[in-house]
Formats: sequence, structure tokens, C-alpha cells
Amino acid sequence: MREPHHTVIVGGVAGGMSAATRLRRRDEHARITVIEKSGHVSFANCGLPYYIGGVIRGREQLLLQTPESLHRRFNLDVLVNTEVTALHADAHEVEVVDRTTGRRRTVRYDSLLLAPGAAPFVPDIPGIGRALVLRTVEDTDRIHAEVSSLPHGAPVVVAGGGFIGIEVAENLVHRGLEVTVVEHGNQIMGPLDPEMASIVEQHLRDHGVRVLTSAGVTAVGADDVTLEDGTSLPAAAVIMAAGVRPATAFAVEAGLETLPGGALVVDRHWCTSAPDVYAVGDAVAAPDFLTGDPVVVPLAQTANRDGRYVADIIADQTAGAEDVAGSAGAPGAGRSRSREMPDTFGTSVMGVFGLQVASTGWSQKKLVAAGVPHRVIATHPSDHAGYYPGSQTLSVKMTVGSGAFRGEDLTDRILGAQIVGGAGADKRIDVIATAMQSGRSAPDLADLELAYAPQFGSAKDPVNMLGYVADNLRTGRTELVTWEDVDKIVTGTAPEDLTDAVLVDVRTPGEFASGSVPSAVNIPLDELRGRLDELRELSEGTQGPRPTVVFCQVGQRGHVAESLLRGEGFTRVYNLTGGYRTWSDGQHSR
Amino acid sequence: MREPHHTVIVGGVAGGMSAATRLRRRDEHARITVIEKSGHVSFANCGLPYYIGGVIRGREQLLLQTPESLHRRFNLDVLVNTEVTALHADAHEVEVVDRTTGRRRTVRYDSLLLAPGAAPFVPDIPGIGRALVLRTVEDTDRIHAEVSSLPHGAPVVVAGGGFIGIEVAENLVHRGLEVTVVEHGNQIMGPLDPEMASIVEQHLRDHGVRVLTSAGVTAVGADDVTLEDGTSLPAAAVIMAAGVRPATAFAVEAGLETLPGGALVVDRHWCTSAPDVYAVGDAVAAPDFLTGDPVVVPLAQTANRDGRYVADIIADQTAGAEDVAGSAGAPGAGRSRSREMPDTFGTSVMGVFGLQVASTGWSQKKLVAAGVPHRVIATHPSDHAGYYPGSQTLSVKMTVGSGAFRGEDLTDRILGAQIVGGAGADKRIDVIATAMQSGRSAPDLADLELAYAPQFGSAKDPVNMLGYVADNLRTGRTELVTWEDVDKIVTGTAPEDLTDAVLVDVRTPGEFASGSVPSAVNIPLDELRGRLDELRELSEGTQGPRPTVVFCQVGQRGHVAESLLRGEGFTRVYNLTGGYRTWSDGQHSR
Repeated sequence: MREPHHTVIVGGVAGGMSAATRLRRRDEHARITVIEKSGHVSFANCGLPYYIGGVIRGREQLLLQTPESLHRRFNLDVLVNTEVTALHADAHEVEVVDRTTGRRRTVRYDSLLLAPGAAPFVPDIPGIGRALVLRTVEDTDRIHAEVSSLPHGAPVVVAGGGFIGIEVAENLVHRGLEVTVVEHGNQIMGPLDPEMASIVEQHLRDHGVRVLTSAGVTAVGADDVTLEDGTSLPAAAVIMAAGVRPATAFAVEAGLETLPGGALVVDRHWCTSAPDVYAVGDAVAAPDFLTGDPVVVPLAQTANRDGRYVADIIADQTAGAEDVAGSAGAPGAGRSRSREMPDTFGTSVMGVFGLQVASTGWSQKKLVAAGVPHRVIATHPSDHAGYYPGSQTLSVKMTVGSGAFRGEDLTDRILGAQIVGGAGADKRIDVIATAMQSGRSAPDLADLELAYAPQFGSAKDPVNMLGYVADNLRTGRTELVTWEDVDKIVTGTAPEDLTDAVLVDVRTPGEFASGSVPSAVNIPLDELRGRLDELRELSEGTQGPRPTVVFCQVGQRGHVAESLLRGEGFTRVYNLTGGYRTWSDGQHSR
Repeated sequence: MREPHHTVIVGGVAGGMSAATRLRRRDEHARITVIEKSGHVSFANCGLPYYIGGVIRGREQLLLQTPESLHRRFNLDVLVNTEVTALHADAHEVEVVDRTTGRRRTVRYDSLLLAPGAAPFVPDIPGIGRALVLRTVEDTDRIHAEVSSLPHGAPVVVAGGGFIGIEVAENLVHRGLEVTVVEHGNQIMGPLDPEMASIVEQHLRDHGVRVLTSAGVTAVGADDVTLEDGTSLPAAAVIMAAGVRPATAFAVEAGLETLPGGALVVDRHWCTSAPDVYAVGDAVAAPDFLTGDPVVVPLAQTANRDGRYVADIIADQTAGAEDVAGSAGAPGAGRSRSREMPDTFGTSVMGVFGLQVASTGWSQKKLVAAGVPHRVIATHPSDHAGYYPGSQTLSVKMTVGSGAFRGEDLTDRILGAQIVGGAGADKRIDVIATAMQSGRSAPDLADLELAYAPQFGSAKDPVNMLGYVADNLRTGRTELVTWEDVDKIVTGTAPEDLTDAVLVDVRTPGEFASGSVPSAVNIPLDELRGRLDELRELSEGTQGPRPTVVFCQVGQRGHVAESLLRGEGFTRVYNLTGGYRTWSDGQHSR
């Protein structure tokens, strides 16, 4: 009898474990070995911060499976506390060390799946040994023990204002600690644009978190940290959450193709450059949806999905082994083509102190940096009908292509979306992500027939509204300016088409009195028809008629005003997308 | 100067008002008249039940706009309490009556948009005059006044177990009344399949609502109602919620093409059979996504959307009036083609006592009745990660095409989905609806990159899970049976391929002891590999090996068992989709 096919999987969480269990379901007689560096497999890695904060109370809830339960149910050989130290692709072998006993040995494989994940980046600064990181159950135990020993109100510094840093910050507040988030960049939450991130930042401050941006930790002392500007912050504990790096040293050393930084390069079938070696998850670069360039977007959902897909590929290859031509030395050759890796969109959501922060695709700043022609739509709809109790305002931003990039016409294509709000952001980002991934255009969002009841949405759902605005943009029925454009008008640095624009606040006098854009005049929308002459007078510039920029609180009344003025013969009329609210969010991000 | 184009809009809620305001934004100088039969326009019709229940406290919250505010902002002429009594399409005139003064007059139009909505169906039974209906603000006031006068615990009968009947029932419970829902059909919530509706029914009972199905009200007495079986129910108040009928009598009389029942027939551009007469909303039949047949699906979201679209068509026609060839007598000819009516999917959601009830597309019973070849997938995932507090179980059902229908291959096409649960049903139905409307197949749902954090979902989202199962079906890696199939096995009425099947409950002995399918044997999944001989013995039938049907609580362990048995050489292995839980829900619906 032929030896069963032996698949070795490096990494026993998310992608690795998803692949292992799927592979067993596909092949009852395969030999499957899972090698995990930490002491636990299949743990709830996205739940770790919440155990620290006491939101998840039982530590056992983090441990979804054990090596024993996985052996019982899936007949897997799971080696924990076991690290791969070397990969010999030609020999189809990995060298491993048992971290408990120090014993080393060699494991032979027929197929190898690398799912080692990514490890926290730890900068080489003085005193860094006192800083804690969060990746494994052991890390969690360490942080849990340390913060449990601190008195109420003790100062803690979290270095890094990304997903993990903010989740940890929230949970340390739950533990009664005084938390400062120190972020190296000029905003927290890198995937968001600054005016969206500023909402999150303000929300953190409202919940007692101090947030410092453009600030790096340069040294960790016995009870403080030193920042780049030389100041020091008291710090009874320090958590490093400054991003992650693929945990691929052994693969790099083995000569597998990687990107700078260590992410494994794979083809659309998760094949690395070495024969019979596949890779999934946070250690892998995958094609960006817009450029096709390999990008590293560490997300649990795609890791789980891809683990399953690669298991199918391995299983198909095994099943058809007799029919498959020898593939030695030719990466990808002769392999099953049962599944193709979808493009990467970077769809994500985070919850912090009851706020939902969701995004997909590219941010505006990324589009600007890459020179992708685009338009911006900002809205502030309610998560559900305003007349039904408990509705909350969402801040929504969508970017839409408006020309060619790298030879491809991106006009009307959805390039990205960001949504922040108390409820319903997760739903809308998933709907937009689904539409994007299905090739729907921005105006197509208007067509979508979505489920409505007053508890759950609006008859014109926030997603439909984006489609309506995109349709108006497409047909030239609206011309939008952004909050940055308005700032340029105010400071006299606007480009030619907006130079010397008249800023008209069409909100009520009461709204105007409580704050408006500098130099704006107030003509409430409901008075506009009767005050057109007044506006015509204002619009007479020395060099011909001045452009008109109208705005309201969120953009809807502004659009009515814009349509009215255009109907009355005004040319060069613009509406501020997202209205005064987005402009205000933008000011806070300055 | 040419007279401005005059658009008359019949109906001032949802579709009609959406059209009116859009038309103004498109044409500042058009003349726009809105004719509304009730005393209010632009009211929150989906909110009315919640005002009755005191969930929405202020009556003014129902009134989103007034004729005055609409005149001020949009320069609309709004006539309330005004009813159209006749339509003269050739003369481009409607006859109207002021219901307050009785004054009659004729209104001439250039374009006419019919958005009259649908009126509650009121059966012609003795005593019906005492029954109340819910459609307008006036109706709401009437019900509000009547239930306010009733003592706590007074009995109220709601005739009809659809959306409105159930929403009213919930709100009457909020008012402290003893509510009985009397439903003519054999289940409440017609768009759902029986085992899904039974979850809603049980939930209503848990909240004190009595539910009678297959029961009709045949007479209304002074303080009771009489049912079809001759019994009587005490009823201090009676609400009729037995469905709606298009309010199109005047259009039928004018000879416009309608379906039996009165729904207006329109083309893909909302053109009726009369020139320059358009129609949108609950009074209109629109093409079903599967058959293309005209169907009436009264939903606020599509009414609002279509109102906007038809305004664009009218505005485009006006703008291009000089270029357009005369269109008299040729419905649809020469009209703008700016927007096409999307297919109708019937995407809906309802909230009742904290339960979300959502669906899209066709139910299984509808597919069965029409003879559409399909498969059924049932799952019970958590709305978010089980280790994060507050997760709730969803009941999900998706139907997938499995062959040709009317000459079209529907294989792998998503035909419908139903989701019931405490949270997250609205999100998943919108994602599935978006995928369906974008032409994605059922297995494609596996690919979707959705936003995940433990508060909002799972790394394998419920939508992805449906895709995984659909992929397994597609590739023959799972064979599913439904709870109805299992019932047939139990009763010895199964079709040939399932005759004499061995039913194997792979749950734990504790789960098995607390209830299982009759005649099932218990072999827990984790013991299955060691007890294969036992099962082989059971499977030896007198006529060759018996088929094996495995099941667990929700279907996941069942699938592992199914894969294992197939890997061990068992043929004709099936998994019960949705597991024991779905089977139990099915029993409650019997």
C-alpha cells in the first residue's frame, strides 16, 4: 500500500487550521501535521485584546480547539511549542525544534503549507525589553498579569494607533488604566483618511484615551517612555503595537521568493517559488484589486478562506497524483487549478467604545499619492430611519474613479469606502465591498434593492444614497468640492476654477450662528429663491462671475441649493460633499 | 414664453414624493402638483405601527414634511385630502375632488405620474365596519385613540399574519393588550418557508401573542369575532391586516392596462399603456428577477428609488421635448431612456420583539410550486464570534438552482435566502441580495472578502459559509437532505434513493438524550472513526447497503461525519442541512 500523502502545515491558527480541517474533510487518509510555534492552536486571535479588558471573561473561551480535540475529531498531528528553523525545499523537509525540550528533528513532507502569520514589529530602542506585545495566548497572559498588578489609574503607553493598538487601548481603559496612544504617523488608523480618522481620535479622547500623533517612542525607561521630541510620558506598562512583519525568516533563508519585508510571493494558486510549497495568511502578499501589485493585508477572514482553498488545491493534486506530470523545479506546474486567489480589497471593521470603523479598498490619500484620478463623495446618513428611536449618524466616504490609470479607464468604478458610526457601518461596508468585488459601478449602488424597515435602514439606504450622488456626478448634475478644497478657498490657495469662490452656507441662521466656514455668507435654503439677486450681486467678481460653493450640514440641502442655482442660470456652482460636518472633521485632523 | 411643463403626481408618499423632489432638482422651472388623497404627505408610513405602540412617542415624528414645507423648499403645489376620481388620458386631464369641501375640478397635465399606493384589503363580512385598518396617519390616529381607550389586558384580534399584522400585533402588546393574530394561510409570514416562519411564530408566542393559522375571520361582532370553524374570539378591537390591493380604480376605469387585482402594467421605463402616464410604487407590477413575469411587491425602498428614476425620465423628456418625435397613442415611444427598471427581488426585513426576519428572492415552497429545480442549504451560524459576548444564533436558508427552468440553466444560481435571528440578519440578507443582483453564483459567496471583527461577524462569515456549502454541493463533496426528507424517511414515505436510510445522530450522548429524530442511532462524531464496523453492520440492508443520513445540531459536525464516511468507502451518504435544529423548527410548523 502506498504511503499516504503527508501535508505539513506551519502555523496552527486561522489559515493553517482552516486548511488542516478542510484537508481532512477532503481526504480521510492523508497524513496531516500541524506545527505551531506557540503553545496553542486555533485560538481566538482577534479576541485576545478583549480578554485583557475583561470583556471576554473566561480564558478558556479563547481556546477554540486543543491538539487533543483536533486529533480526536480531525485526526491531525498537532505539534505545539514547535518552531521551524529551516526549510529544505529540494529535500522536501523542514527542520523543527521543540521549544520546550530543545529537541531538534527533521520532518519530511509531500506538500508544505506555510501559514506562519506575522509577528509584532519591535523597534530596537533602549529599554525595549520591558515592552509587551500582543500576538499569542502567552503574550495575552503576560499583559493580563502585568495590568492586573497595576493600581487603578496607572499610566500605560500603547505605541501604535492601528487596529491592535486601539483595541488594546480600549481594553486597558476597561481595566481602569490611564492610556496614552503614541502614533508615529500624523493620524491614527492608517487605512482611513485624516478627516475620518479624526472622528475615531475624538471618540477615543471622549473615552479618556490620550492620543499623540506624529510622536514616536525612542526609549523605554523603568517607569516611563521617552518620545522623539525629548519629552517623557509616565508608563507603568508599555505595549508595542507598531505593526507586524511576516514571520518568514526560515523561508527567506531557504531562498523562497519574498517581497522586501519578508512577505512570501505566491501565484494565484498560493504556490510559492518552491515546488510543493504553498503559503496563505498574514505572511503572504496577494494582488491588490486596483493595480494587481502584491500587497500584504493581514486579515483573518481572507486567511481562513484561503486556507480552505489551498487545502482543495492540495487535495485535488493528491487525488490526481497519478495523472499529474512531474512538477519538480517548476513552481505551479502541473498543479490543480480548483481555486483562484481573489484580489485583495482590504475590507475591515473595528469596534472601539461602541464606534464602528469600517473600510474597504483604497483611501483618498493613497489614490492621491498614486495619482489615480478620482472623485470623493461624503455623506452623513442615519443608520436607520430618524423617526425610529436610537438612530445614529454615520460618516461615509466613497472614492470613485474619474479617468484612466495605468491604461485602464476607472470612470465610475468604486475605488474605496470608509464608514464610521455607532451602528450599521459594518453592514454598509459589506454591501459596498460585495458590489465592488462583483464589478458594480458607483452609480449601480442606486439600483440595489436592499432590505428596509425603520429599525434597520432607510427607504433610501445609505448605500443607495452613494449611488444617487455618484449618478449625479456621472451625469454632471452635481459638482462636488471636498473639505480640503474649501480650506484652499478660505486661505486663497485654491486652483483656478475655485479661485475667489463665494461660500454660501444654506443652513438655518441658528446653525450658521453656532459655527460656519470662515468668510461664508448665510442664505438659508428655504429663502434662496427669494434672495437670488443678493447672491447674483455677491457673485459679480472683478474678473467676471465668481464660482459659488454652497454647503449645508451634511450635503443634502446643499445639493438642493446647487440644483436651484444651476436652474436659475448660475454657472460654476459646487456643493461641499459631506457639508459642514465633514469640513469640521477635517479641521480636527489638521 | 412657453408654459412650463406640468407634471401631476398622484400620491404624496414614498414614490410620489421622491419623484416630486427629484423633479424639482432636475427642473427649477417645471410646474409640479402633488395630489394626495389623505390629509398628509411624505409621512413615515413604515413608522405608523410604532406610534401606536408608543415606541415612536411624538406624532409629529411621523410627519416628515408638510404641504407648506414642501412648497417652501421645493416649490411644489401639494393638494391634500384630494382624490382623483377620473383620468382622461387623451385629454391629459384628471378629475379631482376636494374631500373636505366636496369641490370638484379638472387638472390638466403634461406628464402624469401615478403613485397611488395600495389600500388595505377589507373583506365583505358582517360587522366589518367595526374593524380598523392601518395605512394613513388618519388610520393611525383612529387605532391609537381606540386602543388608548381599552383597559389593560383587553383582547384584540389582528386579522392577518403578514408584515403589517405582525408589526401591529407587537405594538398592541407594547400597549398592554392581549393580542391574537388570526392568519388565513397555514403559516404566518408568507414570504418565508414554514420552518422559518415557525421560528417567528414561536417568538410571537414567547412574547404573549396568540397565533392562529388556517383560521379566517368570518364575522365581526360587538365584542368578538367569529372564525371559520364557528368558534368566537373576544375582541375589544379588530385590526384588519389581510394584505393590500393597488388603489387604482380610477386608472382601471380609464382603461389603463392592469393585471387582475388592479396592479398597473408598466414597461421598463415606468410607462403605462397611456401616453405620458407613468406609474411607480405599490400600485405597479414589476418584472420578477427569475421569470420576468410582472409581480407586485409593495416595498418602500423600491418605490423611493423608482420615484427618483421616473423623475429623471420625465425631466429628460421635458429637456429634450423639441427633439422628441410626437408620441401620442404610442406608449413608451419617443421617451427618454435614462433609467431602466431593475428586476424585482422582494428583499425585505422586519423586526418583531427584537427578532430580525429578512428575506430575498424566492422561497422554497414557491420554487416547488413552480417546478424550479433547486437545492436547499440551511445553516445556524452565530451573528458574531461566539467567544465575544452577546452572540446570537441565526437561522439561515438559501435556495440554489440545480438545473434548467424555462430554457435557462439555473445551476448554482442563488434563487432566494431567508434569515431569522436576533442580530445581523439584516446585514447578511443585504449582502446576499447585492450578490444576487450582481449575478454572483452561490459558490461565489465563498470568495467575498467581508469585514470581520469579533463584534460583527466571524472569520468565516455566515455568507461565506453559504458559499462553502454551495461549493461542496457543486463539486459533489456534500449531498444534503432537508428536514422534510428526514420526515419522509421516518414515516417510510421517502423516495427510492433515501428508502430505508440509517439515521445517524453524530451529536454527543447528552444532546441525543435531550431529543433526536425518531429511529436515529447515536454515534458521536469524535467516536465515529472507532465505530465504523458498527455502522457498517447497521447499513447492511436486505436489498444491499442502506443509505446513511447523518445529522448533528446545525450541520457542521454532520458534514465532517459525511466526509469521513465517504472517505471510508460508504456510498450514498447524506447530511441533514441545518441539522436537528432545522428539523425541530420544521416539526413546529407541522
